[in-house]
Amino acid sequence: MNEAQLVARVRELFSSRIGDDAAVVGDQVMTSDMLVEDVDFTRAIPLRLIARKSLAVNLSDIAAMGAAPAYALLSLALPEWAKENVDEMLTAYAEAAKQYGIEIVGGDFSRAEKLTISVTAIGRIVSRPLLRGGAKKGDRVYLSRPVGGAAAGLQLLNAEGSSYAEKEFIKSAVRRQVDPEPETALGMALAKLDKVTACIDVSDGLSTDLHHLCEASQCGAAIEKERIPVFPDLQAHARGLKLDVRNAVLHGGEEYALLFTSSMREAELSSALGRPVYAIGRITGERTVTLDGQPLAPGGWDHFAPR
Amino acid sequence: MNEAQLVARVRELFSSRIGDDAAVVGDQVMTSDMLVEDVDFTRAIPLRLIARKSLAVNLSDIAAMGAAPAYALLSLALPEWAKENVDEMLTAYAEAAKQYGIEIVGGDFSRAEKLTISVTAIGRIVSRPLLRGGAKKGDRVYLSRPVGGAAAGLQLLNAEGSSYAEKEFIKSAVRRQVDPEPETALGMALAKLDKVTACIDVSDGLSTDLHHLCEASQCGAAIEKERIPVFPDLQAHARGLKLDVRNAVLHGGEEYALLFTSSMREAELSSALGRPVYAIGRITGERTVTLDGQPLAPGGWDHFAPR
Repeated sequence: MNEAQLVARVRELFSSRIGDDAAVVGDQVMTSDMLVEDVDFTRAIPLRLIARKSLAVNLSDIAAMGAAPAYALLSLALPEWAKENVDEMLTAYAEAAKQYGIEIVGGDFSRAEKLTISVTAIGRIVSRPLLRGGAKKGDRVYLSRPVGGAAAGLQLLNAEGSSYAEKEFIKSAVRRQVDPEPETALGMALAKLDKVTACIDVSDGLSTDLHHLCEASQCGAAIEKERIPVFPDLQAHARGLKLDVRNAVLHGGEEYALLFTSSMREAELSSALGRPVYAIGRITGERTVTLDGQPLAPGGWDHFAPR
Repeated sequence: MNEAQLVARVRELFSSRIGDDAAVVGDQVMTSDMLVEDVDFTRAIPLRLIARKSLAVNLSDIAAMGAAPAYALLSLALPEWAKENVDEMLTAYAEAAKQYGIEIVGGDFSRAEKLTISVTAIGRIVSRPLLRGGAKKGDRVYLSRPVGGAAAGLQLLNAEGSSYAEKEFIKSAVRRQVDPEPETALGMALAKLDKVTACIDVSDGLSTDLHHLCEASQCGAAIEKERIPVFPDLQAHARGLKLDVRNAVLHGGEEYALLFTSSMREAELSSALGRPVYAIGRITGERTVTLDGQPLAPGGWDHFAPR
């Protein structure tokens, strides 16, 4: 089973509420994400940032639902090296909770050979929930911010040596990877606009998450490479750093940008939101996803794929 | 740091809602528990039962709060051997959810070398939340059912060979260990009785959990060994199976019995509840826990202790 098959099985066995970035339950949304050492991060990343990211990825799911983050529960299975520095993690969680305006109300501690973090986040629906399934033929497809930086950051983190000239670029790309910012304010603002029809966060990669949105909406999409906003300086430094820009932009995961659809024009929507958002194509009735007219397969992250 | 120190730090950094079996948030209670292979269970246990138990321990926390279980989120980090049998786990979760009347609304899948399960459960407060901190001097201390079976079951599971004559006892003790039953109906019934003052579930062991309750209530307790209900046939088979009955009863964890306090007499309370409950002693003003007049140290499970 791959992740999509698993999710289908889980919906069938458990609940049709499963399948969006978070489950809608009354006036709340609920989501859980688990991060495992050497699968989702390595010990090379400071514990403080691992903690922040484990919270941020959940808050990104809450943001994609258009809800206000409210509560979180943290479960930490700690190996010896992390136990010794658990206070660094706890302090980072407390700081991040304050920054995002949430309260950490519970959790659990256990032991493990690999640091394993499970976070559950609960949000409050302020206007309406944004779902993946509302996109309509003719809607524009939007990205909330440039993408490709997180994938570049991951590649730079994994690269041997550090004799790069492009220090500032590396810093910003690595930061996008290790300390992502959930689009909390934007998600809540989108939920207030009737003409925003569907939303998902880019956690698995633009291509894969656009497929998720289209499957839920029973539609297709035609996007244009030229219109996809690219992380600053990614192109300029690509050759020197041996970055595959196309791959990073189309398939790179962990961006936590929002990918959403609306009948509103880009200028109109950006103006309503008071910040730029980027139209990258249109929703179609075809049940396929294309890039510049060619089929675009989901090339992003599948947690459950054999590797 | 041991677990008590960690919890104190977490309360200070995060939220004073932390410290009961679940956090009270509006008319809900929320709790998370994490189970890790080779820490909380081994591969010798069928996946189906590992799944059931991971849900049951969370529902026991909801029961100790006197709330009705409502929703759960499951995060599973799966090694290859478990991936191949993930459907067995999912089916067990679906069955258990049906049995307990809850809906599994979300979760996450990841990979790991050791099977790691994190469950978050959310309950609805029907009357009032039962807290650890309400016990008053003079209250009776109650257990909801006989204890010692789970510890005996764990010892039997870990024992070499299986040439025991006491098959039926082994079966029931092992079952208590691997497939514990949360006291959901009792918890909700206790919450409706004004004279029930405090409650906790016996997950770490009677001695340790009684200390937790007394610390939260700023009181002490004097219990009597003679009055503690002992798992059926534990005493009779103890010698042949090399079971330490005293240790199993006083310090054995994972019982998921409720430990609670009330000014009501045993006959009166059992009658009000329509089922037996067992008075094992009294709450005192002394800030110490005693067994038959001698100090009783917390001898149960500390998740975070070095071992």
